[in-house]
Amino acid sequence: MSMRFYREGLATPRGSISNTHPYWKHVHYRRKVEDEVTLVCSKFREMCDESVTSETRELLQLPNFNNWEWTEWEILHLLQHMFFELGFIKKFDIEVEVLRNFLCSLYYSYNEVPFHNFKHAFCVTQMMYGMIWKCNLLERLGEMDCLILLTSCICHDLDHPGFNNIYQINAKTELALRYNDISPLENHHCSVAFKILEHHETNIFRNQSLETYKKVREGMIRCILATDMARHNEILQTFRDITPEFDYTNREHVNSLSMVLIKVADISNEARPLDIAEPWLECLMEEFFNQSDLEKLEGLPVSPFMDREKVTKPSSQCSFIGFVLLPLFEALGKVLVELEMTISNFGLEN
Amino acid sequence: MSMRFYREGLATPRGSISNTHPYWKHVHYRRKVEDEVTLVCSKFREMCDESVTSETRELLQLPNFNNWEWTEWEILHLLQHMFFELGFIKKFDIEVEVLRNFLCSLYYSYNEVPFHNFKHAFCVTQMMYGMIWKCNLLERLGEMDCLILLTSCICHDLDHPGFNNIYQINAKTELALRYNDISPLENHHCSVAFKILEHHETNIFRNQSLETYKKVREGMIRCILATDMARHNEILQTFRDITPEFDYTNREHVNSLSMVLIKVADISNEARPLDIAEPWLECLMEEFFNQSDLEKLEGLPVSPFMDREKVTKPSSQCSFIGFVLLPLFEALGKVLVELEMTISNFGLEN
Repeated sequence: MSMRFYREGLATPRGSISNTHPYWKHVHYRRKVEDEVTLVCSKFREMCDESVTSETRELLQLPNFNNWEWTEWEILHLLQHMFFELGFIKKFDIEVEVLRNFLCSLYYSYNEVPFHNFKHAFCVTQMMYGMIWKCNLLERLGEMDCLILLTSCICHDLDHPGFNNIYQINAKTELALRYNDISPLENHHCSVAFKILEHHETNIFRNQSLETYKKVREGMIRCILATDMARHNEILQTFRDITPEFDYTNREHVNSLSMVLIKVADISNEARPLDIAEPWLECLMEEFFNQSDLEKLEGLPVSPFMDREKVTKPSSQCSFIGFVLLPLFEALGKVLVELEMTISNFGLEN
Repeated sequence: MSMRFYREGLATPRGSISNTHPYWKHVHYRRKVEDEVTLVCSKFREMCDESVTSETRELLQLPNFNNWEWTEWEILHLLQHMFFELGFIKKFDIEVEVLRNFLCSLYYSYNEVPFHNFKHAFCVTQMMYGMIWKCNLLERLGEMDCLILLTSCICHDLDHPGFNNIYQINAKTELALRYNDISPLENHHCSVAFKILEHHETNIFRNQSLETYKKVREGMIRCILATDMARHNEILQTFRDITPEFDYTNREHVNSLSMVLIKVADISNEARPLDIAEPWLECLMEEFFNQSDLEKLEGLPVSPFMDREKVTKPSSQCSFIGFVLLPLFEALGKVLVELEMTISNFGLEN
């Protein structure tokens, strides 16, 4: 099974460093169990020729789609559906079998962590899918940029170990050493994505010209690296600067918009109904608390917003929504006016 | 022998990818032969307590120092001398034995390639050493920034495979995949440097506080990544913008100056006498031609300045000196006026 390579290549202890660097330690016990992967993928393959009901097709385009009601093989099926529905299969000559291999490989490469897992990647992708339809991005941006955006979303947290960049850097993990403290996680997610895509049997872009592949690669790297929240202000400011004269024929403008789109999708849980958003917040807190517990254990600095003795759910969310999420949504709403209503609804709810 | 880890960690084939990605292929046959490393390091250890003659001490500070007259163990000895002479041993509480381990580890981690080898790293370091004295940088920048600059120079091309970033990216090598096409070589050089420094027995900064280590790490990453020529214009322009109001108490200004200093040292061969510079040019052409030959063989794009059918030595050097080297030296000369005479001499020679 060729997929195994990624797992081994990434997680097998090599030399003494693996025993002293926590990144690997955690990855080991957070890896998916092989049997479960096999089960989920075979269930997906059993149902993958079925078509999606018209009710689900509609629901899948909306922010109130409830991920908690679906199994992981159904989620794989829904992801496959998105590629069909957006016309990517035809337009980019994607072989269905390759798409299925690709999706199974991705599923396999997400870890069993509380928040940054396969389901999170799906939610981000589903929000992007909704925005593509709602804002008619297929026409505004073109199919290529939409393909880049959707694929970036599915890949954007691959092999996330459940401990953020600050931890990686402070704990001097293998990833921080490898990437010289520069967006270590996002660089890794992106690198894992392309290691999967470099395999012929999982390369959904294999029928594209070299030139197109290069563009897709550049675009996906740009989008995935934009999800590092350390770059939030920089990316938001660049986008605000071009907003008054936004021009869809300007490559720089479209690139900036794409980065804001994936950022919005990435943190859009709070734009969903409470019964969907609430469990996600629980998951996030669990992951944060795991990290701060470990940081205390290892004598590393602890981020206040992760400390179970300092954080309360409402307080943390108020700051996040007020200082990060709303400004970002508002900036995007000025270019994609269709999103404005969603934003004001959302503002009223809170 | 703990050093072996780096070699194994970096070059041992792991899974199928190593057979299909040229970065590894080349590295294998360009690795240093173990026996030679042992010989050079033991010769160095035999002589390492000797002091450097006063004639050599003076010469070592000048751009007409001739690297071609020295063996590799003597070069290791000269590097050790620089740490003493600049006062780093005392100031930063560096244990001499650790420094020797560190230098041997670095020597071991440079490959047997025509240009980007250990001797090149030495020349860059020696030019930096000369500039530190000539421009009184110990006082102007402080010892910490000089330590960062000198150490960055020695490390700045570690494990260079002899094929540049353009090749890495076009050939989709392991390094390009790992670093998402973003300065793959420079990121790798820097990562190798800190993998060496993370080992207790080779960590020359091990007696420093966490805070100091962090500063050194940030500084070295900044300097080593600045040697990617793809960033030449950006770095030069930033420096030009601050030149009129250059302020040694401004951290941003000093960082920008440091990046220009290492860039100057990195391409300073042409500022040396012809009998030193000429052989280096031969080495560079050999490395370029090796690359373009391989690119032709693999059906990859060939950079015109590397093509043995298109390049002549004088033509390539005229463009490089005129468009890259002189503008950079001139910009630096406006802040470090002591260098101006060197630059005008150099202008007359050509």
